[in-house]
Amino acid sequence: MTISIHPIPGIPEVSRGDDLAALLIGAIENGGLGPEHGDVLVVTHKVVSKAEGAVRHLGEDEEADYRQAALDEAVEVLRRRGPMIIARTRHGFICANAGVDRSNAAPSTVVLLPRDPDRSAHGIRMRVREATGIDLAVVVTDTFGRPWRSGLVDVAIGVSGMEAILDLRGTTDQQGRVLEVTEVAIVDEIAAAADLAMGKASGVPAAIVRGLAYPKGEGRATDLVRPADQDMFR
Amino acid sequence: MTISIHPIPGIPEVSRGDDLAALLIGAIENGGLGPEHGDVLVVTHKVVSKAEGAVRHLGEDEEADYRQAALDEAVEVLRRRGPMIIARTRHGFICANAGVDRSNAAPSTVVLLPRDPDRSAHGIRMRVREATGIDLAVVVTDTFGRPWRSGLVDVAIGVSGMEAILDLRGTTDQQGRVLEVTEVAIVDEIAAAADLAMGKASGVPAAIVRGLAYPKGEGRATDLVRPADQDMFR
Repeated sequence: MTISIHPIPGIPEVSRGDDLAALLIGAIENGGLGPEHGDVLVVTHKVVSKAEGAVRHLGEDEEADYRQAALDEAVEVLRRRGPMIIARTRHGFICANAGVDRSNAAPSTVVLLPRDPDRSAHGIRMRVREATGIDLAVVVTDTFGRPWRSGLVDVAIGVSGMEAILDLRGTTDQQGRVLEVTEVAIVDEIAAAADLAMGKASGVPAAIVRGLAYPKGEGRATDLVRPADQDMFR
Repeated sequence: MTISIHPIPGIPEVSRGDDLAALLIGAIENGGLGPEHGDVLVVTHKVVSKAEGAVRHLGEDEEADYRQAALDEAVEVLRRRGPMIIARTRHGFICANAGVDRSNAAPSTVVLLPRDPDRSAHGIRMRVREATGIDLAVVVTDTFGRPWRSGLVDVAIGVSGMEAILDLRGTTDQQGRVLEVTEVAIVDEIAAAADLAMGKASGVPAAIVRGLAYPKGEGRATDLVRPADQDMFR
């Protein structure tokens, strides 16, 4: 099937207490984008965090406070390099500075990860359904580095209305052989695809992925956290 | 910008010596898909490997021969779990079974990675340019697991006609602050996006990503291999 990815421009700067779902719906409707049944609405976590107040103010020594914010968000520090840490967050994600980030933050603040991004996604989804009658899937994203591979990619840290993993176990290939690749991290592929349309510097914090036959369900992004006992690289 | 991802159906089963570029061009034209200037043509490595003869026949003890093929393709084994290894390939990629795979392979064979996937991508690109006058970018993909995160995603293992990494160093965010996320693994995001349209079981081995303002250049997928001295998790 052909898939299209539509950036959603026109979302204003978001602050604590803003009704992010209403801002998203307004921007989608103003852009003539629907929403439509079967859409996936992808939202970068930064606007989610700002709306939820998951922001920390930095004092005079901004660098030190930034470092402290990352340490406070970390439940385990895996590696350090200079001021940067690679840490596990309370959600189980492993990422730079435990997800604490200054880009696109207001002056003298850092943005944290949402407390429960799956719940954030669910909240947006419910509000969209209420306002428009459309039950779409919602994916909340962040930008992560990876071991072994240079460069960063967007991944899912929150999801609602679909499975996080596309389970192909038992599916056969064109030769009738059972597939070896059985569990596709489809929400991470959606996050990556949406980032292509949004761009990092453009200030567009959301996109619609349309035409994808995604697996409906009650998945959570924490389903993507590989249990420690199955992780060969912990 | 709006991006669209078009699967390319109608590519027949590929065997050693087949003219893959001609098969791709034929399928693109038959599908009414162009090609168009600015397209990225994404091809799963499996058809590339088959056309190039990067295939190994298994003897009577298929399991043992499969394991041996993986060991032969590995330059370093990082982990073992049962019969499966996580290994570094000669290209520098770290993946399961050094990229050796039985899914969508002919009976009693395994498919290896192309010897030089960047060169493979370049060859396809040159043939498309020759035949159609269109200079598109080409990305060759495989499906990799990741440490820490469950599920697999498609990534780039070969590229031609574009940079592998979108370099945003020095770019500022909406507040004028220099971005912290500076190097986006854009070809990996393209690979992931294309996989959404192709699907694992459908036998569609290629897709066109259209509408993306990608960074033209002479990047290589091996640019994505993080040098060992910069890798905190080797």
